[in-house]
Amino acid sequence: MNMEIGKKIWAIAEGYIPAWSNGPGREFVSHEAACILNANDTEAHLQLTIYFSDKEPVGPYKITVPAKRTLHLRFNDLKEPQPIPLGTDYSSVFVSDVPVVIQHTRLDSRQDANALLSTIAFAQ
Amino acid sequence: MNMEIGKKIWAIAEGYIPAWSNGPGREFVSHEAACILNANDTEAHLQLTIYFSDKEPVGPYKITVPAKRTLHLRFNDLKEPQPIPLGTDYSSVFVSDVPVVIQHTRLDSRQDANALLSTIAFAQ
Amino acid sequence: MNMEIGKKIWAIAEGYIPAWSNGPGREFVSHEAACILNANDTEAHLQLTIYFSDKEPVGPYKITVPAKRTLHLRFNDLKEPQPIPLGTDYSSVFVSDVPVVIQHTRLDSRQDANALLSTIAFAQ
Amino acid sequence: MNMEIGKKIWAIAEGYIPAWSNGPGREFVSHEAACILNANDTEAHLQLTIYFSDKEPVGPYKITVPAKRTLHLRFNDLKEPQPIPLGTDYSSVFVSDVPVVIQHTRLDSRQDANALLSTIAFAQ
Repeated sequence: MNMEIGKKIWAIAEGYIPAWSNGPGREFVSHEAACILNANDTEAHLQLTIYFSDKEPVGPYKITVPAKRTLHLRFNDLKEPQPIPLGTDYSSVFVSDVPVVIQHTRLDSRQDANALLSTIAFAQ
Repeated sequence: MNMEIGKKIWAIAEGYIPAWSNGPGREFVSHEAACILNANDTEAHLQLTIYFSDKEPVGPYKITVPAKRTLHLRFNDLKEPQPIPLGTDYSSVFVSDVPVVIQHTRLDSRQDANALLSTIAFAQ
Repeated sequence: MNMEIGKKIWAIAEGYIPAWSNGPGREFVSHEAACILNANDTEAHLQLTIYFSDKEPVGPYKITVPAKRTLHLRFNDLKEPQPIPLGTDYSSVFVSDVPVVIQHTRLDSRQDANALLSTIAFAQ
Repeated sequence: MNMEIGKKIWAIAEGYIPAWSNGPGREFVSHEAACILNANDTEAHLQLTIYFSDKEPVGPYKITVPAKRTLHLRFNDLKEPQPIPLGTDYSSVFVSDVPVVIQHTRLDSRQDANALLSTIAFAQ
């Protein structure tokens, strides 16, 4: 199904990538993700800005989500213009050229059993 | 009480069924659920489409929620047109013929103690 | 501060009280809560209806939240018209006579380490 | 990027700082946080009021978030007009002079493995 669902501006006020991990492989690496659904039949181009507590924002990070695809973007994987430091408070704002839906998830595996959080992001 | 509460279009951008589980019985099987409340006095008919990161969407899955009932739909249980693969990123869009309320929950029991996440889905 | 913040109709589509618990005392009993903030300077009177997957809704449960107070209502504690069965899927709808804010939380202590989920409820 | 994103009034109906903790250092202290993103190019001034179940609200707590910064405010750290008691139900309302985005997070480390919850707050 091709649908114009979502909004073009999203914010996630919480952001923190735990600095270490327990458990086997990439799936248990402590991480934060922005799950981005692009249900349109055209590619989505997003610009992501990261805000910190004590320094200037960094960005834009450029993200592309193909038509009718989802991208579970790990903040850990961002490289350009610079990686996000671990163990650091941040927030994020996404601006897209077509409507998308964004949900925030963290997997924290610093202790023996992992912990999860998730919430729909704030849309404007 | 009979109420027209909710919306007809819902999206869940996060989706991931952990590939394994710890703990006794169905209640501790790692799963994702869409909890669908139909508070109307007429049956709700929903069409669910699943979006992936690297292939065409699959659907529609057809879901019925009786009048004045809730359905805690496990994505793990979907069969037609095809099961959702485990350990795979996805997103979902629900289109209903009457207003409903949808909330997303995951139980992850891959490690010794389970982890939970939940969020209200995105409504349009 | 006295503020008219919130909405009068709220729904929580997810509902499930785990059937057992680990850990000392009331604070570690597996439970679900609806946290209700009444920031008004008048008492809030709510009617709560519980929806099930396979039987008629039950209610109304009558709930009072004093002016400028919060009530973290445990579904486990509901008695009249009848307790909510453990280990059972349900949903809930709240109708208030003044605006309130409702957030849903579950503590699941069935395994050695507890798990938490929370989300803002759906407002209409 | 400088953006006017967010709302000026936010509420978090859930509030509870667990009374004890496991794990090393400040990062594993059981805590609740309100993550506040101020994406504007002017400083944000917020007034926070805390509501309880059985006594008068306390506040305002005065909070400043610099322009284009995020503040992950731990409720545990609030001092003036008075600290928030541990193990106590509360709710919070934030009023800002410029639009901000607020997300609620709890880390509960009372048991061997920590638990997390998070949700976007309620905006008005």
